[in-house]
Amino acid sequence: MRENVVVIGAVALGPKAACRYKRLNPEARVILLDRGRRISYGGCGIPYYVSGDVSDADELQSTSYHMVRNAPFFRDIKGVEARPRTEALAIDRAGKTVRVKNLDTGVEENLPYDKLVIATGSTPRKLPIAGADTPGVFAVADLDAAVAIRAQLTAGSVGRAVVVGAGFIGLEMAVALADMWGIETTVVEYAPTVLPTVLSPALAAMAQHHMEEKGVGFRLGAQVTRIEGEGKVERVVVKTASGEETIEADLVVMSVGVTPNTALAKAAGLEVSPRGGLVVDEEMRTSDPDIYAGGDCAEIKNLVTGQNFFLPLGSLANRQGRVIGDNLFGLHSRFEGAAGAWCVKLFEQSASGVGLTLEAALRAGFDAVSVLVSQFDRAHFYPDKAFMYLELVAERGTRRVLGVQGVCALGDALVGRIGAVSALMPHKPTTTDLSVLELPYSPPFNSAMDIVNVLGNVGENLLTGRNKSIDPLEFGALFDGPDEDGVFFLDCREQPSAEPLLKAYPGVWHNIPQGQLSKRLDEVPRDRKVVLVCNSGARSYEAFVILAHAGFDNVVNVAGGMSSLQNAGVDPKL
Amino acid sequence: MRENVVVIGAVALGPKAACRYKRLNPEARVILLDRGRRISYGGCGIPYYVSGDVSDADELQSTSYHMVRNAPFFRDIKGVEARPRTEALAIDRAGKTVRVKNLDTGVEENLPYDKLVIATGSTPRKLPIAGADTPGVFAVADLDAAVAIRAQLTAGSVGRAVVVGAGFIGLEMAVALADMWGIETTVVEYAPTVLPTVLSPALAAMAQHHMEEKGVGFRLGAQVTRIEGEGKVERVVVKTASGEETIEADLVVMSVGVTPNTALAKAAGLEVSPRGGLVVDEEMRTSDPDIYAGGDCAEIKNLVTGQNFFLPLGSLANRQGRVIGDNLFGLHSRFEGAAGAWCVKLFEQSASGVGLTLEAALRAGFDAVSVLVSQFDRAHFYPDKAFMYLELVAERGTRRVLGVQGVCALGDALVGRIGAVSALMPHKPTTTDLSVLELPYSPPFNSAMDIVNVLGNVGENLLTGRNKSIDPLEFGALFDGPDEDGVFFLDCREQPSAEPLLKAYPGVWHNIPQGQLSKRLDEVPRDRKVVLVCNSGARSYEAFVILAHAGFDNVVNVAGGMSSLQNAGVDPKL
Repeated sequence: MRENVVVIGAVALGPKAACRYKRLNPEARVILLDRGRRISYGGCGIPYYVSGDVSDADELQSTSYHMVRNAPFFRDIKGVEARPRTEALAIDRAGKTVRVKNLDTGVEENLPYDKLVIATGSTPRKLPIAGADTPGVFAVADLDAAVAIRAQLTAGSVGRAVVVGAGFIGLEMAVALADMWGIETTVVEYAPTVLPTVLSPALAAMAQHHMEEKGVGFRLGAQVTRIEGEGKVERVVVKTASGEETIEADLVVMSVGVTPNTALAKAAGLEVSPRGGLVVDEEMRTSDPDIYAGGDCAEIKNLVTGQNFFLPLGSLANRQGRVIGDNLFGLHSRFEGAAGAWCVKLFEQSASGVGLTLEAALRAGFDAVSVLVSQFDRAHFYPDKAFMYLELVAERGTRRVLGVQGVCALGDALVGRIGAVSALMPHKPTTTDLSVLELPYSPPFNSAMDIVNVLGNVGENLLTGRNKSIDPLEFGALFDGPDEDGVFFLDCREQPSAEPLLKAYPGVWHNIPQGQLSKRLDEVPRDRKVVLVCNSGARSYEAFVILAHAGFDNVVNVAGGMSSLQNAGVDPKL
Repeated sequence: MRENVVVIGAVALGPKAACRYKRLNPEARVILLDRGRRISYGGCGIPYYVSGDVSDADELQSTSYHMVRNAPFFRDIKGVEARPRTEALAIDRAGKTVRVKNLDTGVEENLPYDKLVIATGSTPRKLPIAGADTPGVFAVADLDAAVAIRAQLTAGSVGRAVVVGAGFIGLEMAVALADMWGIETTVVEYAPTVLPTVLSPALAAMAQHHMEEKGVGFRLGAQVTRIEGEGKVERVVVKTASGEETIEADLVVMSVGVTPNTALAKAAGLEVSPRGGLVVDEEMRTSDPDIYAGGDCAEIKNLVTGQNFFLPLGSLANRQGRVIGDNLFGLHSRFEGAAGAWCVKLFEQSASGVGLTLEAALRAGFDAVSVLVSQFDRAHFYPDKAFMYLELVAERGTRRVLGVQGVCALGDALVGRIGAVSALMPHKPTTTDLSVLELPYSPPFNSAMDIVNVLGNVGENLLTGRNKSIDPLEFGALFDGPDEDGVFFLDCREQPSAEPLLKAYPGVWHNIPQGQLSKRLDEVPRDRKVVLVCNSGARSYEAFVILAHAGFDNVVNVAGGMSSLQNAGVDPKL
């Protein structure tokens, strides 16, 4: 089938669609354009190149066996005609041609197409502030920008850096700067927490606390108002609730989100959503049946809300690329949407999640609740283990799982759990599905009752009123709050564990080991709020059951127990 | 609700059911019996206790915070009346009582029940051979047996050991003996491969090869005929295809499967399947509506075959325990079955899987095929990574995923992938579901196109005839086989990579880099079988497409490439 296929954009989705289609139809002529000089690189690897973990930029553009994916590679290995430094100027849908320009020679030509793929990606947003163009201010835009950042680091001229934006890339860049280069790094974020769209405040506090221990500074709820410097960046001025602050910086990394590149598609009259992404159907086809689009320039369906959303991730782009490759050949493959699975490594902690946070779920109109669980990621008797913290977001009534997010030092173990939940998300799982979820089991990898099963159980107890819990931040607010006298803090652990806190907070901290509670009920006030604490939340739940059975109705337990309080840095004295 | 519940068996399922029910119904009287002195221990941790990873046997019987789960623990913390060393002699279903005997005092009594739970577990099978009772021959039966084994190890009297059975526990015990105690260990297995019921021969070869590199010896396809020794074990005599062999041994561990303990239930007239397990419905109820059963003594539904099967795993027992606890209270929770997810750590390699192997699938009547894929578990440019090998078993026609198994040095990463597939199994996934499976993505954890997605893609190519592959063992058979001249071995890598093999096998090994193949087609014979090899299987697939397009119809590529050959130890010269 001698068809002409033109693919605009040669990072992630573009090459995948082009190569898959070419394999299906070796007789086709497939042209793969890109404005950039470098094509088909792993953009998500940029922070690891900046850190030095990846020694050479070429590695991000290479196959596992060190072949650089440049134009000759695509020609010889893939049979695809790749044209770097070539910009698509306009699409003539009636004539089925793309006007392109070679950015090196200036030569323009019209490329005829039978089928067209728009894979134009996205562009980092730029804050509209004074000094945003000062030399030394970078966006993590592409590999060339990364090379420029690393050159400046290598030159040794960077002692202090500011990262604007505490999303994935911002935090990864902060780790890269602070960890590998020892740079004094401050992250400035407009929202009051890190990773604000994907983590609850409690889990975000854990991630932030760990990064602070590693030396990264944070200014949250802070707005960058201007960037100053003579010829190069010297200072970032931020406004917080407590006033204006100036942070010295030799390097500024802007990471405040991306905007889909849809100008070309818009000009050609293709449908673009009010949110800014190209509209495609489940076969990744635009409003023109001969034009496909995907990756960062398109919107996809959110499998949890049922609404379209914008989720610029290299993994989704690659999978969509294959679907488009199939469909160019007429196979009718489908991309049904995404639940929004993600993960990020932050020094020795990792965070991962899928679906909605409680805040996002409430905003989307769900009658949602959340609960935090902590448990060792492996059998507790196995030598090498770490505490894992998982938060479940579920809908009342239906008990539907709307999201799960977590933090753990053993990142693969965490990502594995989130992956399993993610696999279920298209099937609209309930808490019961998590309770009985079948995971491979052996003591070096998990407990017989895996934390995901426990999460389902605890969620079900919560949704059926058999448990009530507060998270570490809610505990902190009560503990430091004005109504401290109104709250009875009851430590359910054995006496030696409770002792230090009994001494530190006499009259405030109380202790009845859970095993004695049913015989010492008269020591628990019936007219005050009772807050139960143990190590992980398991014994305080047993205590909750005892108190509930005895008619106490103003009791909560601290989800994740002392361990979650410590991890969230709620009270250093704890 | 003042109900009497009696639970027979206090390991895994029994305690879980008892405690869940007691929390739901604090007014109930719950009695938990066990023949053993130790109750509620993590039996799956026995190999880690034997190895010394777990220093004290009490740890296997403790909570995460070091409380030993003995009778006082159940009384004080859980409100459950636990009775160790108490045997259930008979169930009077009409009178609703259980006749029990205290094994220490000999006193018998009748315990009335409203609801009864049978959690009698299983007993290790014992080979009916001479010398099976010789001192120094152990089954991994319970924690007391483990204590006896470790005592013998600690005494320093064990220089050589034989493990009979290359299933999970057998291999874990072999690792424990060889790794931590430096004992010369030989594993004897009747089947021709290790982990024969859960791994393909090719993956089994990888696991075995790694264990051999760590010093463990194997006698496969070997039958133990007798055990000899004066007063203590001295020798194990095995029969193989090549004759009889005597292996010196100071310790023998028998690990040849378990038999469900159903005598009590049978005597009470409850339904037991011809395969030996108690028959229960999806609420874990036996043929008597007031009697529940689960764990190792019961059968469950295999979600892949739809038939009942016997899967004695602590993880399933725990989850079933909670379901039974719910149902004792009338909640009607369901346990729908299992797909058979498992994992095992063997020195620095791990293996994991879910569902059926190719052999099991064919035996179950599926028209099944399988394919092996290898890929780094993380982004290939990320510094700390390992090759992962996954094998897909799928049904022709429907493209249904019947099973996935794998081997990888980074065990959590492997188990995470299998967990995600396992989560899908109740939904009868197809290869397409794997192709688009949404996993959390970031370079420290995976590739943008995760190996599970690739597995789905490769499976689809296989099922649609777009790819044909052979596994390392099939390659080995061709390479060493009599028809060597009939086969054209074509290395598709660049010349420097192929060079050592061209020198080692002149006239047999050929090299055309895949990028040159379309121009050098005349060098490839059309009348011989062509076997394509590259590093990982990706480039040989590209070569396959080129040859197929050029009309070559007797071509296969080596799944997983050189990397899988090396891992399987197929040819040390490779």
